[in-house]
Parts: sequence; structure tokens; C-alpha cells
Amino acid sequence: MKAFVMREIGRVGFVDKPVPKPGPNDAVVRTTRALICTSDSHTVHGGIGPRQDLTLGHEAVGVVADVGSEVRDFRPGDRVLVGAITPDWGQRAAQAGYASQSGAPLGGWKFSNTKDGVFAEYFHVNDADANMAKIPDEVADEAAVYCADMLSTGFMGAENGNIPIGGTVAVLAQGPVGLMCTAGARLRGAGLVIGVESVPARQELARTYGADEIVDFSKEDVVERTMELTGGEGVDAAIEALGADLTFQTAVKITKPGGTVSNTGYFGEGEFVQIPRVDWGVGMADKTIASGLCPGGRLRMEQLLRVLAFERVDPTLMTSHTFPFDQMEQAFEVSDKKLDDVVKVLVTF
Amino acid sequence: MKAFVMREIGRVGFVDKPVPKPGPNDAVVRTTRALICTSDSHTVHGGIGPRQDLTLGHEAVGVVADVGSEVRDFRPGDRVLVGAITPDWGQRAAQAGYASQSGAPLGGWKFSNTKDGVFAEYFHVNDADANMAKIPDEVADEAAVYCADMLSTGFMGAENGNIPIGGTVAVLAQGPVGLMCTAGARLRGAGLVIGVESVPARQELARTYGADEIVDFSKEDVVERTMELTGGEGVDAAIEALGADLTFQTAVKITKPGGTVSNTGYFGEGEFVQIPRVDWGVGMADKTIASGLCPGGRLRMEQLLRVLAFERVDPTLMTSHTFPFDQMEQAFEVSDKKLDDVVKVLVTF
Amino acid sequence: MKAFVMREIGRVGFVDKPVPKPGPNDAVVRTTRALICTSDSHTVHGGIGPRQDLTLGHEAVGVVADVGSEVRDFRPGDRVLVGAITPDWGQRAAQAGYASQSGAPLGGWKFSNTKDGVFAEYFHVNDADANMAKIPDEVADEAAVYCADMLSTGFMGAENGNIPIGGTVAVLAQGPVGLMCTAGARLRGAGLVIGVESVPARQELARTYGADEIVDFSKEDVVERTMELTGGEGVDAAIEALGADLTFQTAVKITKPGGTVSNTGYFGEGEFVQIPRVDWGVGMADKTIASGLCPGGRLRMEQLLRVLAFERVDPTLMTSHTFPFDQMEQAFEVSDKKLDDVVKVLVTF
Amino acid sequence: MKAFVMREIGRVGFVDKPVPKPGPNDAVVRTTRALICTSDSHTVHGGIGPRQDLTLGHEAVGVVADVGSEVRDFRPGDRVLVGAITPDWGQRAAQAGYASQSGAPLGGWKFSNTKDGVFAEYFHVNDADANMAKIPDEVADEAAVYCADMLSTGFMGAENGNIPIGGTVAVLAQGPVGLMCTAGARLRGAGLVIGVESVPARQELARTYGADEIVDFSKEDVVERTMELTGGEGVDAAIEALGADLTFQTAVKITKPGGTVSNTGYFGEGEFVQIPRVDWGVGMADKTIASGLCPGGRLRMEQLLRVLAFERVDPTLMTSHTFPFDQMEQAFEVSDKKLDDVVKVLVTF
Repeated sequence: MKAFVMREIGRVGFVDKPVPKPGPNDAVVRTTRALICTSDSHTVHGGIGPRQDLTLGHEAVGVVADVGSEVRDFRPGDRVLVGAITPDWGQRAAQAGYASQSGAPLGGWKFSNTKDGVFAEYFHVNDADANMAKIPDEVADEAAVYCADMLSTGFMGAENGNIPIGGTVAVLAQGPVGLMCTAGARLRGAGLVIGVESVPARQELARTYGADEIVDFSKEDVVERTMELTGGEGVDAAIEALGADLTFQTAVKITKPGGTVSNTGYFGEGEFVQIPRVDWGVGMADKTIASGLCPGGRLRMEQLLRVLAFERVDPTLMTSHTFPFDQMEQAFEVSDKKLDDVVKVLVTF
Repeated sequence: MKAFVMREIGRVGFVDKPVPKPGPNDAVVRTTRALICTSDSHTVHGGIGPRQDLTLGHEAVGVVADVGSEVRDFRPGDRVLVGAITPDWGQRAAQAGYASQSGAPLGGWKFSNTKDGVFAEYFHVNDADANMAKIPDEVADEAAVYCADMLSTGFMGAENGNIPIGGTVAVLAQGPVGLMCTAGARLRGAGLVIGVESVPARQELARTYGADEIVDFSKEDVVERTMELTGGEGVDAAIEALGADLTFQTAVKITKPGGTVSNTGYFGEGEFVQIPRVDWGVGMADKTIASGLCPGGRLRMEQLLRVLAFERVDPTLMTSHTFPFDQMEQAFEVSDKKLDDVVKVLVTF
Repeated sequence: MKAFVMREIGRVGFVDKPVPKPGPNDAVVRTTRALICTSDSHTVHGGIGPRQDLTLGHEAVGVVADVGSEVRDFRPGDRVLVGAITPDWGQRAAQAGYASQSGAPLGGWKFSNTKDGVFAEYFHVNDADANMAKIPDEVADEAAVYCADMLSTGFMGAENGNIPIGGTVAVLAQGPVGLMCTAGARLRGAGLVIGVESVPARQELARTYGADEIVDFSKEDVVERTMELTGGEGVDAAIEALGADLTFQTAVKITKPGGTVSNTGYFGEGEFVQIPRVDWGVGMADKTIASGLCPGGRLRMEQLLRVLAFERVDPTLMTSHTFPFDQMEQAFEVSDKKLDDVVKVLVTF
Repeated sequence: MKAFVMREIGRVGFVDKPVPKPGPNDAVVRTTRALICTSDSHTVHGGIGPRQDLTLGHEAVGVVADVGSEVRDFRPGDRVLVGAITPDWGQRAAQAGYASQSGAPLGGWKFSNTKDGVFAEYFHVNDADANMAKIPDEVADEAAVYCADMLSTGFMGAENGNIPIGGTVAVLAQGPVGLMCTAGARLRGAGLVIGVESVPARQELARTYGADEIVDFSKEDVVERTMELTGGEGVDAAIEALGADLTFQTAVKITKPGGTVSNTGYFGEGEFVQIPRVDWGVGMADKTIASGLCPGGRLRMEQLLRVLAFERVDPTLMTSHTFPFDQMEQAFEVSDKKLDDVVKVLVTF
């Protein structure tokens, strides 16, 4: 079968690979739709070290092609969503409630990291009963595929923010994850959602997904403006959705004492992520710093599909580009180089 | 001043009372709008025992008339919302996070219980800095007054339900509190909200406030239908919004193992509230039973006002009747006897 | 092999059964020590319905005899503890944090319920990597075996009670689970632990495990005495460790507003478990009713073994009787009929 | 009356001040015992900026001398403990559950910060009903005084660490706060407590208060040794009890994914507190960073006094030196310059 891989650091391309075979607990899925993620770019540019001919991609939906002997709930032909993160659910960290960390730090992240990803005609799913969900008829593949990572990560950002009904939230950066943090903040009942973003098209999407106010960091001081919008108090939750040290520092500054800095960003550079000491209340202001990795698993995926089935959020507005799988190289370039005001690139199979 | 009181059990009427005076920490508010609550009827009919000439009412907004020497943040002329529950914030239960229980079980409930209520030209507010909130210009009095009890209690029902994003919720009964439980479930991100109700007008309001499905208990079996709607699993949260033993039992039955029965109802009768033993998993199914009394306090009121200011919910749709204060006897009768498809009666001053 | 079974309701005895074989994810363990539980009696007397030749027992330790192809962390010869509850960790309820409810209400309870138990020369463990733990050298089998159910259930009672450091706790009944609730309350930092018990030997054990005060319900009024001991406030947590409606009612009565009734008891009789309405604050006193089923899993077992390895608690004081496996009928009778001041019966293999 | 003050940055001494008068909600207490804290030194050396003749000290017990008109629960002659932090309980942050942040970041910290402290013959207590607790007869003043800050802060470090029963904890630094973190970790049920400390006398105290293992950072690598002690996993909670950037970094490194870095330290220097990026799982390893300021309030103080009354912990072992108040200058020097293996200096009045 055809797979779109990272040949080596900095180089991508197609290679032929055998169709994977399922172990006793596994499934093999025929891919129908996938999305390209910024972290695919991180990976290609060396973020997780060297890889050779590793299939890229972790956001996909498809149709079950084959299942192992122990799989009880899925059969070939089932239309399924697979989480980007596919934990080992029996492992200690999963038993403690942190499935994404099962087996190792970020150990639930297997696709295009410790095994082949989903940018291929078929892909392999470990612990299939636990990591796949059937897609309801009323949800299209091109919507469902957003649950794998974008909704799951974005909503986690809001959930970790511990937002009270009527609370105040700032979401720093309105890329696809940030937009879903914004939607997530609204889903948790935030009374005021501030979207921080400078790109007009993303500002517009942020408003659509629920931002009440937009702060353009290229034109105004984010700390000052947020304080103004919150009566000088700061926000209940500041959600970092970029993965940049400066943005993180801003998040700490605008969070009220007793509030939460909720991190969703992948920090790819530098020795340290820096907490501004005085703004953190010299370590005593009850400003919690929470973080996490996209939750996976069947239950999570079913909950997210319900959000789509009952039309709470329409993620397809983020699809700025669509390419067939055989134009994967162009598709990847658009996403990688952020060409043409790209938000999210959908790949069809 | 004129006050609408409970003369004795079963009898209401107007009496003249002196305008109250504030102690050092208190305020006196000139009433502008009030709402009549079912619990006013409970009280009049003897629910909390005999009272003589006790001013009724606990849901009101108004304008500050006078403040005590220690009040720092409010001045005469301020337009304010006062929570139905006005806790002593320094008391043990408040320090433990249960302010509504300060001083005694339900001790935060003072209006029309342990002191005169708000159905009068003026009313007294203890611990004014802690129990009042300024109403923003963009929120009208007739909307703000719903925050005092209806939004606060209803949203509490949803919050205590511990609803995950995309989770499933049933709200049993769609009176004013139940309707705000429904709205609250949506504000917490529920993926499926089931409203249980038989009255068509309330079914309609339930849909408006966010119920995805209506179950009419007069026409179908609630347990059976809820199981059907949730794939046989039961709901993540069943919110009791009536205060009836049978409804409570249904709530336990339709809650999934690991889910929550969230009670907002006032149980006015019988020696026991009964948990169906087998459906409760013989005491081992992790079905938590949560309960509470309307949260009060300045912070809560400010959060709820933000929900209105940013147009998340429009509670005025529940105002089925409006009367001026001098027609309070008729107003009370409509609410008390549930005449004329009443949902909520607004009183203007 | 020899297995001690429930022949039918009301009748026990030995039968010969084949040594079980592991599936791909499973293990087979050669039993070395087991404990008899009150719920074995419940089962024999029909509590979970008819069973034919079902091997009894769910508390055991042993040595791994065989493992399936997918088991990674255990090998024949490993000395292991197996939780009484052996969840399917990939199942929805487990992903939601309620593993004991995986697959069905109480679905994690498989031994001597939905499959053969541990009172046999060998027993079968599903999902072995997730449900077994290696026993450290410094912990003897006769201590480790208490982790399977007694420590796990008892400590859960304390954990669910949400006890603050310095908080007040009452544990109602000081059988083996109640004694471990008492120990658990101390492990969570309770400032005052009240043990309710009438049997002198159990009162003595309660003191040893950390009860500061003993209330003998046969001699004094539990509600009155508890109120006296807590300055009229009631306790932060009342832990039910018997499974009796009256005890449950007492638990509700002695819990302060904002406190927790934590249930560990198995309620075997009656249509309802009854909440005293007024003492529950007519449904509005923030008295949470929590419940659960013994947590299982490798992580939990490892944590409990650490409690033993570092000598926080010595459960072997509860071993009142020891029998070899071939005297299982006598052993069972002692436990079943509560002969000879029995607390807990250890079985050696 | 005599008061021991900070004359200006770097200079301390006695001055005469009038005995304070209580406002309506306040009390005045005659001091009987006090403790000197490292943060008194921070203050004197300019940590919170210039102050002129500010009375130092925030840890004290005494006898009520006078109360305001609104104080209901205390009378002159009552023997009382006052929390180091005396929040405004009606303020927003307190209503949100973060009383120490009431009014402003660290706003509950009033003594020797925004008003005169307790190193005087009398001191003033705001919101007396909410911020004082009666000392039970069985607790001596010299023990009770440790509750004001040492027990409250130390136990908070453990509580914020979200320690499971049988979990693993490291406490970094065993000064008085660190020692009470160690005691607190034991009170929460930790299965393994690792104390990091190089001073032999403090190592010894750490063992007494519950450390199972001591890691001497002057002789071994803390990260390596902690990983060894935890089977390569890291700890469930790493409690920072020093306030140093390097210690904080170590805490992040030794915390397992899904675990908590719980900060109790006051960070007095530098622009940033630095999170080691890779060890923090590039922002995605679910390593929560919690922090807080010593909880105050009557309920907290009563809970801590119960810990002493029921002999869970004996804090007086930390009293290395005792001075009468008129030798306050020497007393302060011993504490400030860390002379003579000082742990904690008690002052008698």
C-alpha cells in the first residue's frame, strides 16, 4: 500500500509498505479522511528526533478492514473514528487517570511517533475495542475526523482550565487547537471568552466559535487589554494554544490568583519554559499551571461525536484546503509552510 | 413601608413595617423587581413551620438606599442584585466551601425564613459587600432578578452533575428551576440533554433552553425511554428538579454506574427519600448522590450577570405573568395555585 | 485440581475442575493464601442468584503458573497479588475513572460472580498485566492477601469521604472492612476518628487501627454521642461499613452539612435504602452520598503493597483463624456463621 | 506597648506603639507566644519593599483582650490561635475558594505586610469570628502557635500534591515548612516519603516526622536517586519547600507524568522561575504545577488544633531556641543568620 512518510529529518515522500496485520487486540482500518497537523511538521523538522520512513499523520477516520481474535465490539465494514492518542489502558498511568501518559511520558502518542501513522491506505490500531468509536450516520467523515485531535485537545484545554459558569477565559492563539479551546470554553459555560489573535481570518473564526472579544497582540498590549476587559482582575483561565515561551508568560500574567494557566501548546524549543516570578505571586498566588496531551479512547471519541451529532460545534469551518491523498506532497507543503492562509488541510482517500 | 407577609400558616396579606436600618456591615435596598417562587408557597403552607407577619420573597433586585459604616464597595443609588441566599462568609461551613450551609443546615437562607424577605418596598441585606452585585447597564432588572435563585439553583444542578463535555443528562421536571438546569447542562457542554416534562408549554420552553429530547412521563416510561436514548447505558447525570420521591427514584434508575444524581428539589413530605436498592447497585455502583442549596454571594451573582450580559441565556422567556406590587395578592394566588399555565410571576415596584 | 465451590444456593463443597488455561492477555496463578469474605456468604445464600459449582473466593495471592502470548510484565514464578476486582480497563466505565463498573454495574467483579473464584489450587486472571502486582520481598503472603479487598475497599471508604486533614470521621461498624475504613481515615489525616461498634474484640482492634473514640451503639445513642464529640456539628465523613438501612440512616444524620456519607456496605435486603428526609436537609444540605466497589488494578495493588512494605498498617492483626485449604468446609463455616469471635479467616495452600 | 519592628530595610528594633483598638468585626489579642519565620527575614531584607516601623511577625497565640461590637463567638479572656493569614472572607477570591488571595494577590497576608504584625504585647485581628480559634485545654500555647503558619503551609503542600494512599512523595528541603510537608505527606497516606536534605539535624527531624528515605543532595544526585527509589517512575508529588529555582527544576524532573509539583516556597529572586522544558514533557505530560499561600481561617485553625489535640504530630520538636520577648533582637539574629543549627525560634511574652 501507499504511505506518506518522513524519509529522514526534513524530507517527506511516498513509499510502499505492506498492509499491516492486527494482533489479537488490534484492528486495521482503511483510511477515508485525514487531517494534517502542525505537529506533523514538528516531527518532519526533527522535533522528536530522527525517523526513517515513518508514516506520518495521527488524525484519521476510516472503515474497519480487519480485527484481531480478542476484539469484541468492531467488525470489518464499521465506519470508525480513532483517537490521535491510542493509550494502553491497562497501564499504570491510565489506571491513575492519565491514559495519554501510559507506558512513558506522552506514551499514548503512538501514531507517527513510535509506530506508523495514518497517512496511508491502511493503518493499525492497538487495543481496538478501547481506542475506536463507531461514527453515527448523521456525522460525516470530514467532520468526525476533527475529533481525533483538534476537538479532544482543544476541549481539554478548556476542561483543564476549571472554568466556572460565567467565568472569564482567554485563549492565546487561534490556530485550529486554539479555536477548539475557544469552542470548548463556551461549552463549559464561560461568560466572557477573549481570543488573542492577529490574523483576520482566524479572528473571524474565533468569533464564530464563541470569542466575545478579540485582542490583537500586534496592535495592543495583551496583558493591559485583558485586565481592562476583566475589571482589573485577570481571567479565571488562560489557555496557551501556541507553545511559545512568551505566550506562556503572558498567560501567567493575565491569570487571576486562584485561576488556572491551562497549557495545550507543544513547546519545541529552548531549555526552559519560564514562569514570570512576580506575576506568579512569588510562588504563592494559587495560580495553577495545568497541562496535558490530547485525550484518546473510545469514550472520549464517543462524547466528541455526540457534540457533532447534536450540532454543538461545526469543525468543518476550519477546513481551508482539501487534497486527494495522491497530492499529499502539495497538501503537506501548504500546511507546513502555512501557505495561502491555511487553517487546516483535509486529505481524502 | 408596605410589606407582603405570611400572616400565619395558610394566610397572606399586606402589613405596614418600618423601613429596615443597616448594621455596620449591611445595606438596605429599595426593591424594583421581584419574582415569586414555589418555595414561597411551601412556606405559606407551613413547610418551615409557623411564622407571624414574616415578609415573604427571596428573589429581588433594587437600588441601594442605605449602607452601614463598614461597607466599602456599595453606595446609595447603586443598582444591585442580591442572592436569594445571603451567607455569613466567615462561618465554618462557608470556609469549607459550603456557604449556603453557614451557621446551620440551610443557614444561608435568611430571606423569608429567619428574617424578613424581599416582598416589601425596602429590604435588608446582611454582609452587603459579600452578598450584593452591581448590575451592568446592559442587563435589565427583569432579567437580572432571575439570577438570585433560578439561574443559581438551576446551574448548580448542572454543575453538581459533574457533566463531561459531550456527556448525557436528564433533567426531571421543567419548572423554572428545571428549565435552568436544562440551560445549565448546555452551558457545561452536555452532548445530549433529555427534558422530562408533560406540560406542552414547558416542553416548548425546555427545547428553547436546550433540551434535545423531551420525554413525556404521562405518555412513556421514563426509565425505558432514557435507556433507549443512551444506548442502554443511562445518563452521566440525572438532575432532580421537582422534590418528589418517585422522581428521585427514577433519577437513580437512569443514572449510569459512575454517574451522578444531582438533586435540586426541595423534599417537603414523608419521613424518607428512598433510594431503589438494586438500581443503586446495592450500594456499590459508584452512583453519587449530590445535593445543594442555591449558591449565593457576590462572585456567584457577578458570574451569573455575565451569563446574561453576554447573552448566553434569556431567562425572561419564563416570565408568564407580571403584576404591580399592589396586586401582590392576585400575583401570589396565580403562582400558588398554578393558575393559567403559570411559569414565573414577576412583580414590579 | 481441587476447587471449593457453591454447589447451589445454600450448599458448598469441593469439586474437581481442570486447571484453567490463559487466553492471550491472561495469566493462571497457583494459589498460596486466600481470605474468606462475608460476601462469599452472601453469594452462597443466594445474594447474586443461583450458581452451579461456581468456585468461591476473590481474595488471594499466589505464584504465576502460566501467561498468555500478549502478557509482557509477568512470568511463571512471579509472586503476585491479584485484586478482588479485575476490570476490563479499556471499557467505557474504566476510561471514565470507574473501572469497577466496567462492562456492567459492578462489572469488574468477576471472581466467584461471573467466573470461577480463587478458592482453588489455580485461578485465572483476565488482563494480567493490568490486574496483578508483584509482591515485594519484604511483604509476606499472609499480609499481602489483605490488599485484594479489605484494604482496597476500606481505604476507598475513607478516600470517598473527602476527609480534610484534621477532619472528623465516624466509621459505622468495625468488621474487617470497617477496620480498614478506620485505618484509611487515619491515613487521610483525620483529626478525630469515631468507631461505632459493640463487640469488645472489634472495639479493641478499632483502637489499634486508629479510632480515637469508640461509640457502642448497644449502650448509647450514636447520633447523640457523635454530636457531643463533634461540638454539635456532626462529622465531615460518615462511613457506612455494614450495609444496613438503619446504619445508613444514622450515617446521614451524623454528617454535617457539606459533609459526605461514604458507603462501602453491600445492601442485601429490602426494596429501598432510605434517606431520612429532614436530616438530609430536605435535599438541600450539601450532604453528598458517595459509594463504590472495591478498586482493583495493578496500580492500586502496588500502592497498597507499599502501605504494607513501609509498615503503615498491619492487617494480619485481623486474622483470627487459619485453616489449610483441605479444611475449607470448616473454615467456611466459621466465617459464615460468625463462630468463635471470628474476624477474618486465612486459608493456606 | 512594646513592639518589635522593622525600622527600615535591613534594620530592626523595639518601638513604643499604642495598644490597637478593634473595629466592629475585630479583636485585640494579648500575645503569649510567637514564632520567628524565615519570611520575617525576607521582609527585613527588603523582600516586600520598604516599610517604616512596621511590627514584624505573623505566627502567634494569645488571650483575647478586647472585641468589636459585631463579634459573636469570642470574649476577653479566651485563649486563641490566629492564622498567619487573616483573609477577608466575603471577598471574591475567598468566595471562589482562595481566601489567601482575598482582595489582592496574597491579600490575606496582612500581618507584618499591610498592617502591624504580632511581635508586640498586643495585636489586632480583622474579622475575628472568622480568623481566630479557641485553643483546647489539652494543647499548650507553645504547640498551638505552630498551627498559624508551619502546619498550615506544610500540610497545604501535601494537600495540593494530590497524594493517593500508598503514593510516593518527595519533599525538597526540610526546614520547618518542609518538615511539616513531610508530616503532611504522612497524614495524607503517602506510602513512600523521600526527604531531601543535607543538614544532619534536619535529616533526623525529617525521619521523626515521617520520611522513609533521606536523600542528601550534597552527596548524591537527587533526580537519579529518586528515580531509583521509585522504580524509574518518579514521584506522585514533589513538594518544593525552599523557594529556589534549581530546587523547583528538580521537582519538575522527579515528578511522574500525571503527578504534581506542589510549591510552598517563596521565590524571592530572579525574573523567572524556570520549568525544564523536556522534563516537563514539552508541556504535554500532565505534570500539574500547584502553588498556594498558607491557608488561614477559623475552620483551618480548628482542624489543625485537632491534629495536635489527638497527638498526630508534635511540632514542638522543631523549637530549637526559646527567648523572652525582651531578648527579641538576639532571637531575631539567631533566626535571621541561621546561627547555632537553628530550626525554629519561640518567643515568650
